[in-house]
Amino acid sequence: MNQDLRREREAASFNPELLTHVLDGSPENTRRRREIENLILNDPDFQHEDLNFLTRSQRYEVAVRKSANMVKKMRDFGIADPEEIMWFKKVHLVNFVEPVGLNYSMFIPTLLNQGTTAQQEKWLLSSKGLQIIGTYAQTEMGHGTHLRGLETTATYDPETQEFILNSPTVTSIKWWPGGLGKTSNHAIVLAQLITKGKCYGLHAFIVPIREIGTHKPLPGITVGDIGPKFGYDEMDNGYLKMDNYRIPRENMLMKYAQVKPDGTYVKPVSNKLTYGTMVFVRSFLVGEAARSLSKACTIAIRYSAVRHQSEIKPGEPEPQILDFQTQQYKLFPLLATAYAFQFVGAYMKETYHRINEDIGHGDLSELPELHALTAGLKAFTSWTTNAAIEACRMACGGHGYSHCSGLPNIYVTFTPTCTFEGENTVMMLQTARFLMKSYDQVHSGKLVCGMVSYLNDLPTQRIQPQQVAVWPTVVDIDSPDSLTEAYKLRAARLVEIAAKNLQNEVIRRESKEVAWNLTSVDLVRASEAHCHYVVVKLFSEKLLKIQDKSIHTVLRNLCLLYCLYGISQKAGDFLQGSIMTESQITQVNQRIKELLTAVRPDAVALVDAFDFKDVTLGSVLGRYDGNVYEHLFEWAKKSPLNKAEVHESYYKHLKPLQSKL
Amino acid sequence: MNQDLRREREAASFNPELLTHVLDGSPENTRRRREIENLILNDPDFQHEDLNFLTRSQRYEVAVRKSANMVKKMRDFGIADPEEIMWFKKVHLVNFVEPVGLNYSMFIPTLLNQGTTAQQEKWLLSSKGLQIIGTYAQTEMGHGTHLRGLETTATYDPETQEFILNSPTVTSIKWWPGGLGKTSNHAIVLAQLITKGKCYGLHAFIVPIREIGTHKPLPGITVGDIGPKFGYDEMDNGYLKMDNYRIPRENMLMKYAQVKPDGTYVKPVSNKLTYGTMVFVRSFLVGEAARSLSKACTIAIRYSAVRHQSEIKPGEPEPQILDFQTQQYKLFPLLATAYAFQFVGAYMKETYHRINEDIGHGDLSELPELHALTAGLKAFTSWTTNAAIEACRMACGGHGYSHCSGLPNIYVTFTPTCTFEGENTVMMLQTARFLMKSYDQVHSGKLVCGMVSYLNDLPTQRIQPQQVAVWPTVVDIDSPDSLTEAYKLRAARLVEIAAKNLQNEVIRRESKEVAWNLTSVDLVRASEAHCHYVVVKLFSEKLLKIQDKSIHTVLRNLCLLYCLYGISQKAGDFLQGSIMTESQITQVNQRIKELLTAVRPDAVALVDAFDFKDVTLGSVLGRYDGNVYEHLFEWAKKSPLNKAEVHESYYKHLKPLQSKL
Repeated sequence: MNQDLRREREAASFNPELLTHVLDGSPENTRRRREIENLILNDPDFQHEDLNFLTRSQRYEVAVRKSANMVKKMRDFGIADPEEIMWFKKVHLVNFVEPVGLNYSMFIPTLLNQGTTAQQEKWLLSSKGLQIIGTYAQTEMGHGTHLRGLETTATYDPETQEFILNSPTVTSIKWWPGGLGKTSNHAIVLAQLITKGKCYGLHAFIVPIREIGTHKPLPGITVGDIGPKFGYDEMDNGYLKMDNYRIPRENMLMKYAQVKPDGTYVKPVSNKLTYGTMVFVRSFLVGEAARSLSKACTIAIRYSAVRHQSEIKPGEPEPQILDFQTQQYKLFPLLATAYAFQFVGAYMKETYHRINEDIGHGDLSELPELHALTAGLKAFTSWTTNAAIEACRMACGGHGYSHCSGLPNIYVTFTPTCTFEGENTVMMLQTARFLMKSYDQVHSGKLVCGMVSYLNDLPTQRIQPQQVAVWPTVVDIDSPDSLTEAYKLRAARLVEIAAKNLQNEVIRRESKEVAWNLTSVDLVRASEAHCHYVVVKLFSEKLLKIQDKSIHTVLRNLCLLYCLYGISQKAGDFLQGSIMTESQITQVNQRIKELLTAVRPDAVALVDAFDFKDVTLGSVLGRYDGNVYEHLFEWAKKSPLNKAEVHESYYKHLKPLQSKL
Repeated sequence: MNQDLRREREAASFNPELLTHVLDGSPENTRRRREIENLILNDPDFQHEDLNFLTRSQRYEVAVRKSANMVKKMRDFGIADPEEIMWFKKVHLVNFVEPVGLNYSMFIPTLLNQGTTAQQEKWLLSSKGLQIIGTYAQTEMGHGTHLRGLETTATYDPETQEFILNSPTVTSIKWWPGGLGKTSNHAIVLAQLITKGKCYGLHAFIVPIREIGTHKPLPGITVGDIGPKFGYDEMDNGYLKMDNYRIPRENMLMKYAQVKPDGTYVKPVSNKLTYGTMVFVRSFLVGEAARSLSKACTIAIRYSAVRHQSEIKPGEPEPQILDFQTQQYKLFPLLATAYAFQFVGAYMKETYHRINEDIGHGDLSELPELHALTAGLKAFTSWTTNAAIEACRMACGGHGYSHCSGLPNIYVTFTPTCTFEGENTVMMLQTARFLMKSYDQVHSGKLVCGMVSYLNDLPTQRIQPQQVAVWPTVVDIDSPDSLTEAYKLRAARLVEIAAKNLQNEVIRRESKEVAWNLTSVDLVRASEAHCHYVVVKLFSEKLLKIQDKSIHTVLRNLCLLYCLYGISQKAGDFLQGSIMTESQITQVNQRIKELLTAVRPDAVALVDAFDFKDVTLGSVLGRYDGNVYEHLFEWAKKSPLNKAEVHESYYKHLKPLQSKL
């Protein structure tokens, strides 16, 4: 083991294994996770090639091979439940993008949620067995988050009892679905259902796109890869154009809505239920944010412990760069954020399961809040994580820019999270809609419950936003509970300002919708403050459940650091409305520096507790055996440009020039 | 032309051509720039292949070919002065990275600045003619910004009158130099000079690394490519390891320091002069930040004008996404920033030339401030631009993630600017050192001049940081001058807080150096505030020079937006010290929304004025002829995965699986 890391580990104030159990939920979970990991990690089929040295086509091929092997492994291990497949693969194993991933994460779950029993019987077995390789085609070239705008049509023809699928415009071409370009032979296609001359909105259809056996695109289908992207090189994100393409009536998923053989449309009892998958995926993405940020912190903090550079005192040996206050200030608040998001991710998972059970019993009462909360938290955690990964990368100096650090790949793989499954700004505005509704409810005398219950405490009858939030309060900057209170006041104040501004615009403008647009900056700000409060609250509450004293101490410091850093960054919000005083903000800045010093000795143990393996980090810098620089040199030699001593372009372009000039 | 863009252009309140002249400095400069551009853009050798579809080796080859052609073109056009080469190529033409670029931007300038006349005679002609292809090898695997830590040694052997070059450790291997891996046959190597048993610190040596004619690495030289990176795929950033490698005494650049044949070391008269190149490169990078951000804004704003999505009012056609307040709030402050940085870049260029002339006359008085200012502004503008490019990319939704947007490439090509030529945090601390020096000077009764002269106004004898900055002031949020004043007060306050905190730590700690480290977060914050003030000041001053009324109006709005957005983001800084009141901050937020509406009709014209050609944007989304979606579809079809209807990995990995399961 590297000597620097050995010293760091010996100096830690707590046992990281115990913290790993906290993160996994229990020692048993840790055990099971490692069991599955080892199953894969020790398998020669999964030995790590460095994808960075390969071309895009080669990377795609490696990914297909691994995907196929993964499918076999999962069956060997007896993980069959689609949700378990998703949680387990993503959480523990995957350092690569899977071309057949959407078959398991979207195709099968949608079939299960929206297909009739007969439909499940027809397609489930062969999609589990991968005779059917399915994907989920919703987004079009011209339309993403705004679903009503989708243009693909499915027109029912009662004569043949078929749907005729069409991509009527260039913008209606399906665009982005993972695995669609080359891998899949089926897609669940979202299309505007037209029957008896009337459009009934979006419905899902099972569409064969390639012939089983030959894998050739079927007549009427134009399909392919959408081209190179920032990341996801291994994924054949695809396009799909359909021209009068016919499928049988039975290919419409009919658990809820139905089209009778004669073309009569039967509408679903409730459309809230289709929220389910969306809420699940978004709550899952909160956990993804936590994991990606944890990985980035692991690499950056280990590297900062190993890297010696510059000088604090002249003449002394070069310090570890982790000893520079500026480096600590870059990394430790992000480490605190990673822990915060880990706990939020666990909470989202629990909550989803709880509410899902309620839904099973027909109780939909908590769904609106969960829907609003997952939307906002997906946006809040992914935006924060997105910037944080890049901060980690740049904290590694030049080497962070090399793929040897693994950080560029973590970034490009994570960053689409800000856009997919609901663009973040749109998500924040969905949360804002719930906040405004709750505010109006309180204003009209009704109490609200759940995470927004603080709105019940808002004094009414105020007119000027400046007068908002004059609650007398003394914030104790050393108490997570008191800081949670401060974040709550900030959220309440910003929700109220947005609500008042919205009211003012409604009075001034011709329409509510225009008023909404002209207040949307305030609305997003309110949602952010609400989400920030939720994160702080969950972190503080988590502390109460930690038994081990040494772990409690170190997590408490991280929680304080998370809270105070946020206050320092958004000091204006806390000064306005007199939530905090100027001298408190000065104390906050001072306290942050003390907390950096307090966290310093445990920094490496805190990232060790995330328990990533070298191979799951996919990084030379994040390795902890021996000399990182020697690894780096060996790694570099594998560069494709180093295949020949002299690159052919010298003879082609430079040598002729040398004689000519 | 696209109909949306045509309408936008027709509705603009000013003539973008006139604004282009402002940006270029004069109509004559615009004319000359376009002349050179057309020379290249109309040349079949430079026709745009989309590099994104190629492998790394292919991209390197294309770049070498273009590099070689560029050299010929520059000669044809008669641009020979190295500085002109750098400015002209970078500003106007280059949308690609050049493997032989460092020959012109670093090798030749260093030879000119540090070589004797005899040395220039020996190497200049052949390096201009590219018989010698040179690069500049400073950074090592283990050391970047901290130059004193470099380990490469050059030991003088008086017997043979040679230097013996060695890379004594793994960490001492030269790492990163552009064009070093495969392209160059010479390098200027920075090494610790040892003669007569004594080390005299870093000196520059001309080191042949490959044999001219065969291009094979010379004995004693290990050289190659450092492997794949986030970006710069076309560049062979390289490593260089030297083992008892001998070069003649005359290969040490001896204009300043010298080693006599007997090994006697003669030290240079002044070492300030070597600052020159560093200051030049950093001031150039400020302009690079402006150009990269301008490009990103051009693409994102044009796309936002063309993209229709979602709805503001139900039932109406989908609006341009540029009509959403949240989209405006994302993009217009960045557009304002792009203009701000354009003017700062122009100022840096002028100032550099002015001071360079002074230096020519032996006047070094302004060099320390220029050195401090370029360090801080390089960091300030590159950090801001770095985040802003990503914000532009994400404002383009899913398509921003595709290489079709051109934005991922702009980002990965720009982001190393935060790290190279002086890591940003280190740069900020250099500026802080100057600020602290100036503060001490004022404190001891002397006046300071230049950009820091506001420190002269600081009342002395304060003790508590909270009491700082109680200047009575009423900020007029509609006056750029008054806002500049507010930024000045903020800078003064944060400089004073850093200075006081530093003093306190000095009293408490054993050493000044430890105190410096424990105050560095405050010091960086002070530098940022100083730089922010300088940018605001230069933008406000630029307004005074704009004659055309319509252009003045639109630039004034951008200037206000830049100032107010910064205040809104850092509201805490302006509330503390009572620079502004709570109700003013509320007004600022309101005013920002009004400015978004005011800028909206001119947004497209404002990016048109940057005058980028489609080909220099390298983007499908940034094009403005016809239907962007049709271009996108054509572009996607070129994906390497689309070469065959069925990718071979289906037969290899998926088909066997289908029958097995």
